[in-house]
Amino acid sequence: MEKKYNFAAISGSLRKGSYNTMVLKAAQKLAPENITIEQLSIDEVPYYNFDLHEKQFPDAVEMLNDKIKAADAVILVTPEYNYSVSGVLKNAIDFFSRSPKKPFDMKPVGLMGATPGMMGTVRAQYQLRQMMIPLNAYVMNRPEIMISQAHTKFDEEGNLIDIKTTEFIENFIASLAAFSDIFQKQ
Amino acid sequence: MEKKYNFAAISGSLRKGSYNTMVLKAAQKLAPENITIEQLSIDEVPYYNFDLHEKQFPDAVEMLNDKIKAADAVILVTPEYNYSVSGVLKNAIDFFSRSPKKPFDMKPVGLMGATPGMMGTVRAQYQLRQMMIPLNAYVMNRPEIMISQAHTKFDEEGNLIDIKTTEFIENFIASLAAFSDIFQKQ
Amino acid sequence: MEKKYNFAAISGSLRKGSYNTMVLKAAQKLAPENITIEQLSIDEVPYYNFDLHEKQFPDAVEMLNDKIKAADAVILVTPEYNYSVSGVLKNAIDFFSRSPKKPFDMKPVGLMGATPGMMGTVRAQYQLRQMMIPLNAYVMNRPEIMISQAHTKFDEEGNLIDIKTTEFIENFIASLAAFSDIFQKQ
Amino acid sequence: MEKKYNFAAISGSLRKGSYNTMVLKAAQKLAPENITIEQLSIDEVPYYNFDLHEKQFPDAVEMLNDKIKAADAVILVTPEYNYSVSGVLKNAIDFFSRSPKKPFDMKPVGLMGATPGMMGTVRAQYQLRQMMIPLNAYVMNRPEIMISQAHTKFDEEGNLIDIKTTEFIENFIASLAAFSDIFQKQ
Repeated sequence: MEKKYNFAAISGSLRKGSYNTMVLKAAQKLAPENITIEQLSIDEVPYYNFDLHEKQFPDAVEMLNDKIKAADAVILVTPEYNYSVSGVLKNAIDFFSRSPKKPFDMKPVGLMGATPGMMGTVRAQYQLRQMMIPLNAYVMNRPEIMISQAHTKFDEEGNLIDIKTTEFIENFIASLAAFSDIFQKQ
Repeated sequence: MEKKYNFAAISGSLRKGSYNTMVLKAAQKLAPENITIEQLSIDEVPYYNFDLHEKQFPDAVEMLNDKIKAADAVILVTPEYNYSVSGVLKNAIDFFSRSPKKPFDMKPVGLMGATPGMMGTVRAQYQLRQMMIPLNAYVMNRPEIMISQAHTKFDEEGNLIDIKTTEFIENFIASLAAFSDIFQKQ
Repeated sequence: MEKKYNFAAISGSLRKGSYNTMVLKAAQKLAPENITIEQLSIDEVPYYNFDLHEKQFPDAVEMLNDKIKAADAVILVTPEYNYSVSGVLKNAIDFFSRSPKKPFDMKPVGLMGATPGMMGTVRAQYQLRQMMIPLNAYVMNRPEIMISQAHTKFDEEGNLIDIKTTEFIENFIASLAAFSDIFQKQ
Repeated sequence: MEKKYNFAAISGSLRKGSYNTMVLKAAQKLAPENITIEQLSIDEVPYYNFDLHEKQFPDAVEMLNDKIKAADAVILVTPEYNYSVSGVLKNAIDFFSRSPKKPFDMKPVGLMGATPGMMGTVRAQYQLRQMMIPLNAYVMNRPEIMISQAHTKFDEEGNLIDIKTTEFIENFIASLAAFSDIFQKQ
């Protein structure tokens, strides 16, 4: 019987027509039967502020933390704003990191990113890798999914229509499952 | 007659007892008569989302953009959350960067940061420097203000009580004025 | 019977009185009986140049590659020169990376660094982490060994005399053994 | 009468057929009459080692330092090895930085890079920007010259044959002259 995997996935862009959310949804469709990718929304995470969570963590954040903790791996799909991740994604990470549940501890993480530009969110992804260190997450080295000229790779309904990108994402999902095995064998 | 300078300053931490906000307020007190440091609050900046500003930029953001554009230099005081700047500060930068006013274009910027830990926000500051490049701001190389063990350097009312840190900040303010001169002579 | 571990270790500084080489030698002494730490010298690695190795890899480099490949984990001890690793260490990494033996592939790596300054080589270590990604090495997240004011922590013969630093290094060695287990169970 | 500019330029790759050296030579040809670009070779810079220069700086390094100090701006053309600059270039920077002449102090610097790959040396360039901070050099924000698929942009004699890249480099040279003006007006 085939081993089952449960991945949690977050898009760092809130806008409706986000290419990064399209990438996440493409990954959901491309995942083989034994791998489920659940999208977690960070729209409801408030601005991180110690005063806010001093007494109690917001329910919306704790629910996300529970899902992250239960996942076999986490996929972060980040846009590149100002050569880094979106403030929205960084804020969610800040909130996750303060939970006593430590949801990212020893968690295998895979990064993807899409941009209409030429550099495929490369600058954002290395800043994001650094942010994962204090959470004690381990980010898969490769494949690195950096999708340039994203507007040419999706149709008007947001469906992925580029063959190479399709193969990259399929390979990414399979690699992340294998990577998560390393950390589960402990 | 002495030349007058007008600096805008932002603290990247929203919490009431923030050491970074204390650093900002200390700088306001330590500034010589000819230099005014105005604190700009980013509490009211909404999550950046292209859908939001497509028709109109939020007034709260445009008011900040006007003040940044008018300033001789900008001081960013950043906490370090997860080896980077706070999501709140990153989000504000994302919003500033999309304004057609381009408030940071050729703007001299100085960085400070404070933390109860030992590393003085050093990791956050280099990520922040990278974020300033696409805005075409120029970040002063030195002095770098990285305040470690911040809890030992302020009293209970939030007053700076450490002599060395006081001198560092005074030197920082004078250096930023000289640095802003370079860009104004054009 | 206790499992045995064989670590390879490289100091990024060539000078005789190097604090980083002292740290490496301290780790050798502090390692428990079942862990051997072999120092690999990079003094003889020539400047990387594709023309040089086009026909044949230098023997000095291939010998190092064999030892790295055989090691259970690799320790890199880096000074901080100009907010990054030493050019000497970077050059050795460039040479290692071109060997068809791929010595760092899936290799567990631990980082240490020492400096007479206050920032413990923190800036060098994050640049070094980025350099390890294309080699497909995995760098242990923690503990991070960043030794500030190194001149106060060794005696004139180069012996480590600081108790806290001693404990940090002992913990680092044990953690790296546990971290290498993760990758060996595959 | 037109103002004259003297730029110093360094290629971070030693190999004969280096695309980065081709970019440097293309810039020399494309420079307008009033701008001279002198190539400085770092082949003869020994491995940095404090023991080496304790008594006397190597002549080869001091000659380079004099030329850098006299230049109106410096161009660094870097390959990307292992997501950073070449060890050879880093080593030269380490040596320059220790000279009491401080050749890079307040020096305007422009970065270029070329690679047969898709990412245009972007990862190397941001690490290089960080290395310039402690030297107190100021790196021009834009244009950023990141040449991907370099093998398609030069002919067999090493001549630049791509029109867009030609325009990018011409714009880069003019921008660096304007940028150097800012720092000379002091």
